[in-house]
Amino acid sequence: MEVNAADRTVFENRRQRLKALLVAEGVPALLVSHPANRFYLSGFELHDSQCNESVGWLVITARDRDALFTDARFTDAALRLWPQEDLCIYGAGKHAAMGEFLKGRGVTCLGFDPKAVSVFDHERLREQFALVPAGGLVERLRLVKEPGEVELLRAACGLNHRIMRALSDVLVPGMSEAEAAWQIERLFREAGAEGLSFPSIVGVDKNAALPHAIPGDTRIARDCLVLVDAGCRLSGYCSDQTRTYWVGREPSERFQETKRLVISAQKAAMDVIKPGVRMAEAYGAAHRVFEDAGVAGQFTHSLGHGIGLETHEGPSLAPRTEGVFAPGMVVTVEPGLYDPAWGGVRWEYMVVVTEEGCKAL
Amino acid sequence: MEVNAADRTVFENRRQRLKALLVAEGVPALLVSHPANRFYLSGFELHDSQCNESVGWLVITARDRDALFTDARFTDAALRLWPQEDLCIYGAGKHAAMGEFLKGRGVTCLGFDPKAVSVFDHERLREQFALVPAGGLVERLRLVKEPGEVELLRAACGLNHRIMRALSDVLVPGMSEAEAAWQIERLFREAGAEGLSFPSIVGVDKNAALPHAIPGDTRIARDCLVLVDAGCRLSGYCSDQTRTYWVGREPSERFQETKRLVISAQKAAMDVIKPGVRMAEAYGAAHRVFEDAGVAGQFTHSLGHGIGLETHEGPSLAPRTEGVFAPGMVVTVEPGLYDPAWGGVRWEYMVVVTEEGCKAL
Repeated sequence: MEVNAADRTVFENRRQRLKALLVAEGVPALLVSHPANRFYLSGFELHDSQCNESVGWLVITARDRDALFTDARFTDAALRLWPQEDLCIYGAGKHAAMGEFLKGRGVTCLGFDPKAVSVFDHERLREQFALVPAGGLVERLRLVKEPGEVELLRAACGLNHRIMRALSDVLVPGMSEAEAAWQIERLFREAGAEGLSFPSIVGVDKNAALPHAIPGDTRIARDCLVLVDAGCRLSGYCSDQTRTYWVGREPSERFQETKRLVISAQKAAMDVIKPGVRMAEAYGAAHRVFEDAGVAGQFTHSLGHGIGLETHEGPSLAPRTEGVFAPGMVVTVEPGLYDPAWGGVRWEYMVVVTEEGCKAL
Repeated sequence: MEVNAADRTVFENRRQRLKALLVAEGVPALLVSHPANRFYLSGFELHDSQCNESVGWLVITARDRDALFTDARFTDAALRLWPQEDLCIYGAGKHAAMGEFLKGRGVTCLGFDPKAVSVFDHERLREQFALVPAGGLVERLRLVKEPGEVELLRAACGLNHRIMRALSDVLVPGMSEAEAAWQIERLFREAGAEGLSFPSIVGVDKNAALPHAIPGDTRIARDCLVLVDAGCRLSGYCSDQTRTYWVGREPSERFQETKRLVISAQKAAMDVIKPGVRMAEAYGAAHRVFEDAGVAGQFTHSLGHGIGLETHEGPSLAPRTEGVFAPGMVVTVEPGLYDPAWGGVRWEYMVVVTEEGCKAL
């Protein structure tokens, strides 16, 4: 992704908001090691090359200059968006290089996210700094999307709608789940997406009852249901949509009735989502629709999750989630009903919380 | 991926070898949290859904039954390859559920990999178990590939060769790096690959000098060099190849001479790789070719890396790598020369160490 001057202001503003949070929390400086947080604050590299290979860390101070740490492969990419004087290129001795660079600036204490720092790195960093746990601070900022982020999510979601519409012609008898998954990926990529936001789920009939089915050799029959859960990444932001299609002649009565119930539950949840409402209530509203129909036992997962730079981010819309909705949050609303002996139906929207309620993207 | 009976024996044999290692190292039980290690020992889920979301952990004991821990989304996938009595499906209280399950079996002490366990998980597990650092044990087994793994790597690499040959017709003037990258991905997927093993690098002229260039809007000109570093995943195993193409009429003299040098360095390295030889010597052999030509300063990275279930795994062929080659190791040999004012040439093979030397896959 190219980072232009307008983007730089966006990242700079986020760092200023984080600095205010660090002052309020009494954290003198924060090590940012989770890749999506690093990108959110700097525009530098949204992904790590492998889960066990970080391409770089950011240190944001409460009241002073910030610093970016990476290795020589990324010097050029870093210099396009970060001042040279605040850049430290490390070699083999990453932790010692960080210690030297930051101690030269008077930084001796670092907050860190216990979920995003390994025991190994913690031990090495402890030789250089006083370390204090300070998890979830950047995530707290990311919870509420900026208007620019909502537009990017709307664009990613718009592309997803387009692909989902196209799929009613693509899914034909004889096509395997794996072939369908590849067609979905091709459609997304040829329409300009950077990639999928997660591996697509394509489940025919009974396979649709497996919440995380890997698309396999099962073929679409003449009359069957096909659950598709797929999303893309566009300009860094993720989309996530589920539709359950009927391929063939008249949909079965069970399919129609199950779909009707799932969409009612989705609507019930969307009707209660607004600023100030407890998140658990959204789950409850969907659940009650299923309870009233005597099928609540077939609703086996949470109602949805936050989405942004990551497919799964806060908040989680689970039965016991603490917290209330606020304007600018973007969450999925994806109730489903599953019967291993028959199949499953799930329907998913991404919604943005507005001042008055919520709106599907 | 489907796991059949023959695969089960493969995974079972690996667990037996790990058990012997645990006995030798005095580790009563090992927590396996790195996804590739989990898959290597069980066939269960090669990938985590996000870097910050584990789909499950494995505990291998030195002398007793083993256990798999996952959440309800993966019950079905787990039961296809793991006995129900050794499976623990956790909900929100993952660490407590593990403690209860394992303490019921007399497991009170766990070895763990400090690089693959977060500070957060470590703190929660410490409430349940005595924890002892025991990193790199599974990686030690993975260093030497079984004959079956070499065949899978050969197949992935064979597909990579096919795509690299096809590329000489695909790369044409006017095509952008990003378009070329998508064509590469499409070719791999349509030929049956599960996906890319890493984001492709496509660099035109000067961009070829950036070791990790993101394919962008730069277009292939009538006479230019194009560096392509790309690989796929086939049956779980990764390939990784680099070629530097000339698009247009007669290649420039500088390109031809640089390519000749790079291929000489690669050959020099492959000539020294054999069992018992120090890994650093392979790097040294390539480096000497560049030194003799007075261009060693343009060789800015290590010679190569192990490859298998992950694109980057042990051993690293760097100037100061400790250790010697052993039969069955599979490594990349990928010297390159880069000049930011001109461009770069890299050439890469995957080689398997044999009894007598090494052989390109």
